[in-house]
Amino acid sequence: MAYFDGVKVVLEENEYPTHWYNIQADMKTLPPPPLSPASGQPAQPEELARIFPVALLQQEMTHERWIEIPEPIRQIYRRWRPSPLFRARRLEQELNTPAEIWYKYEGVSPAGSHKLNTAIAQAYYNQQAGIKNLVTETGAGQWGTALSIATAFFGMTCTVYMVKVSYEQKPYRRLLMESYGGSVYSSPTDRTKAGRQILAKDPNSLGSLGIAISEAVEVALESQDTNYALGSVLNHVLLHQTIIGLEAKTQLAAVDRYPDVVMASCGGGSNFGGIAFPFVQDVLTTGAHTKIVAVEPEACPTLTHGQFAYDFGDTVGMTPIMQMYTLGHDFVPASIHAGGLRYHGDSPLVSQLYHDKVIDARAYRQTQIFEAAVRFARCEGILPAPESAHAIQAAIDEAIEAREAGTRKVILFNLSGHGHFDLSAYDDYLNGRVVDVPFSSEWTEESLSHLPKVEL
Amino acid sequence: MAYFDGVKVVLEENEYPTHWYNIQADMKTLPPPPLSPASGQPAQPEELARIFPVALLQQEMTHERWIEIPEPIRQIYRRWRPSPLFRARRLEQELNTPAEIWYKYEGVSPAGSHKLNTAIAQAYYNQQAGIKNLVTETGAGQWGTALSIATAFFGMTCTVYMVKVSYEQKPYRRLLMESYGGSVYSSPTDRTKAGRQILAKDPNSLGSLGIAISEAVEVALESQDTNYALGSVLNHVLLHQTIIGLEAKTQLAAVDRYPDVVMASCGGGSNFGGIAFPFVQDVLTTGAHTKIVAVEPEACPTLTHGQFAYDFGDTVGMTPIMQMYTLGHDFVPASIHAGGLRYHGDSPLVSQLYHDKVIDARAYRQTQIFEAAVRFARCEGILPAPESAHAIQAAIDEAIEAREAGTRKVILFNLSGHGHFDLSAYDDYLNGRVVDVPFSSEWTEESLSHLPKVEL
Repeated sequence: MAYFDGVKVVLEENEYPTHWYNIQADMKTLPPPPLSPASGQPAQPEELARIFPVALLQQEMTHERWIEIPEPIRQIYRRWRPSPLFRARRLEQELNTPAEIWYKYEGVSPAGSHKLNTAIAQAYYNQQAGIKNLVTETGAGQWGTALSIATAFFGMTCTVYMVKVSYEQKPYRRLLMESYGGSVYSSPTDRTKAGRQILAKDPNSLGSLGIAISEAVEVALESQDTNYALGSVLNHVLLHQTIIGLEAKTQLAAVDRYPDVVMASCGGGSNFGGIAFPFVQDVLTTGAHTKIVAVEPEACPTLTHGQFAYDFGDTVGMTPIMQMYTLGHDFVPASIHAGGLRYHGDSPLVSQLYHDKVIDARAYRQTQIFEAAVRFARCEGILPAPESAHAIQAAIDEAIEAREAGTRKVILFNLSGHGHFDLSAYDDYLNGRVVDVPFSSEWTEESLSHLPKVEL
Repeated sequence: MAYFDGVKVVLEENEYPTHWYNIQADMKTLPPPPLSPASGQPAQPEELARIFPVALLQQEMTHERWIEIPEPIRQIYRRWRPSPLFRARRLEQELNTPAEIWYKYEGVSPAGSHKLNTAIAQAYYNQQAGIKNLVTETGAGQWGTALSIATAFFGMTCTVYMVKVSYEQKPYRRLLMESYGGSVYSSPTDRTKAGRQILAKDPNSLGSLGIAISEAVEVALESQDTNYALGSVLNHVLLHQTIIGLEAKTQLAAVDRYPDVVMASCGGGSNFGGIAFPFVQDVLTTGAHTKIVAVEPEACPTLTHGQFAYDFGDTVGMTPIMQMYTLGHDFVPASIHAGGLRYHGDSPLVSQLYHDKVIDARAYRQTQIFEAAVRFARCEGILPAPESAHAIQAAIDEAIEAREAGTRKVILFNLSGHGHFDLSAYDDYLNGRVVDVPFSSEWTEESLSHLPKVEL
């Protein structure tokens, strides 16, 4: 039986989740199918099968509620899973709140973040399909690190297109990927047509996640034994991340708790979906009144200021077109430190749930989130990634609200990763060099005018 | 009951260690008492009490076998303890060895290394004694990080004298300490007599651990509410670290194993003593035939090439004089990447056990240990600290020996920390810039001629 040792909840082996949870089984409205960038018509499985293995495409589309986790994946998950569920008692005391704050900590993974949950699964299914190499993009480097580790476990190689500005500013992230055997290129490169096209327009381009995706997809399309892997946004990626919320549910049940509020930072949506979906299930099927909140940076406020529309997943327009909240595929967010949240779009599943008012969203400025991050580090001993600190700030606000209202409540958030590779950002914050730029709708006027025309 | 999930051994709460193990209770020969640097006579408790709380001095001297861990310390240990005991199956497979390789992983602590085990204990006892500030030195930064976190937990401040060469080469380590609230100075400073004395001789001094200790001790001597904290060498430090070996023993017993070989890297001796002493106990009291091996860098080969003699713990000569293996207190080791192992001396307890042939020692060159580190990262998914990689190389050698002899054996080693802050070292290794300098006895001719004269 699971037990709480006063600090964390520990599960027994027979309580480890054996299946991922597929929210498509329970959603009232499902996102429409992705469209082919070439034809504008629903993307055909054959098209997608050029870059994804069939098993993942099936997971992308299935409405089956529970998907069994293959034993080789469960075996590797056990290297760091179940991740701990902590009660933040010292933070509660500092806030003098009657609320209980619980957090799941994904920074214990060897990659340092939740990203490894899907990287392991994607590497496994690709290896089973005979693929020898996975190619991907990375911004801040968390996803590239996770995929480099995952491919090493399955004896495959890994090629990473890393956004140029990060490649230059975060050499340690690149070195981490290389230590695990990954090959890392500064994107845009002259190795792809997409890269050359960007460089022809702007030889000094600093790159973007959208450009790096274009390059990686192109490489995958051109080689038989190479596939593409995406670290967020897609249904199967969010599916794999539900292991977080499923564990959290069992862990909270072991202490007779159920959350009143569930919060997580939200960029492409995989961290948020990972912890939230098993609780959204209860909202959808049992009418539970849990408040579910996606937290995003004000510099890239996809849900809170984006448009619910069809758009490309990348900059150049090579990926399928998906219906989602978007700031426009060529929107370039300000260079905030939470690099993992600088994505113009959002997962179609998360977008649909937000559109249907099943979940909430809010946005914070970066000085706020660093203040929360340092406060949390000094209370709880863990230095969070700036991305994860968005959820901390949201949890603090909820706890203060509970204090002011004099109500007990149970807050759950996901601490998606540690900040060991973000110390230059902490340097900027501690030395007063972090600034806020309040959102203005002028930012997205042009990019939102570039949305693809879709006629169905 | 503890269980093995195929990857790691998980303990139940009633199996968490409640006491530290004090090896002084079982040693046939005990190290002689430390001598006062002023008088050359056994140091008086009043002298030591100027920089250490009485509770720690009692732990330093007691012969009681089991020391109860106070509940506030156990509460904080639960944030990352019990640390996992992993079986390195993928490494075993790659080595094609009949040996089993098990490793304890201390990198899961928020500080990233085993150092937090004693930092928490030292902060607790000092807080209980009314101390408001702890001052210490740090080389590579692991100890300073651990003490910054520990003092934050107990509402105290922390001042860290960081060896100048590390301060300049490892800004992220300094920032990590500052994020947790620590104040960090580049040593030698002009804030202390010891620092000014060094700077007068050499204004461009890059500092050393010995110099930084001199500065920190001086500051502690001069202030009533400030004490000094040391991260290794002393008996009470090794005592606190035995939590590692005690957990490992219970974890191995849960899978019906007992190690034939126990290995750990050894600088000042706290990591080594931490995992080894609970097994040395069996060697001393039940005649167990376990091979116990301290692993050190060939660039600073204290046990394998040092002299068993009285020497100072610091460079300037402010600390008590202890009998230990030493390369001479003014020996300056080559600038290897395993900064945590660049100490001229060794724990008196470890030194005595080595002198009495209860334990073994061996030394490796740094190109070997980086080769082992990268191999381990790609097999096991964890990027080790260069210090910890010494134990990996030793375990690999044992496993290959077992393969060649065709014998099964159980190898246990301690992976003392992760390498997230050592990526510039990996950069050097991956790009062919790591070089070896084989040990020569000429290195220590002068420093060994400076040992203090002791007449008892």
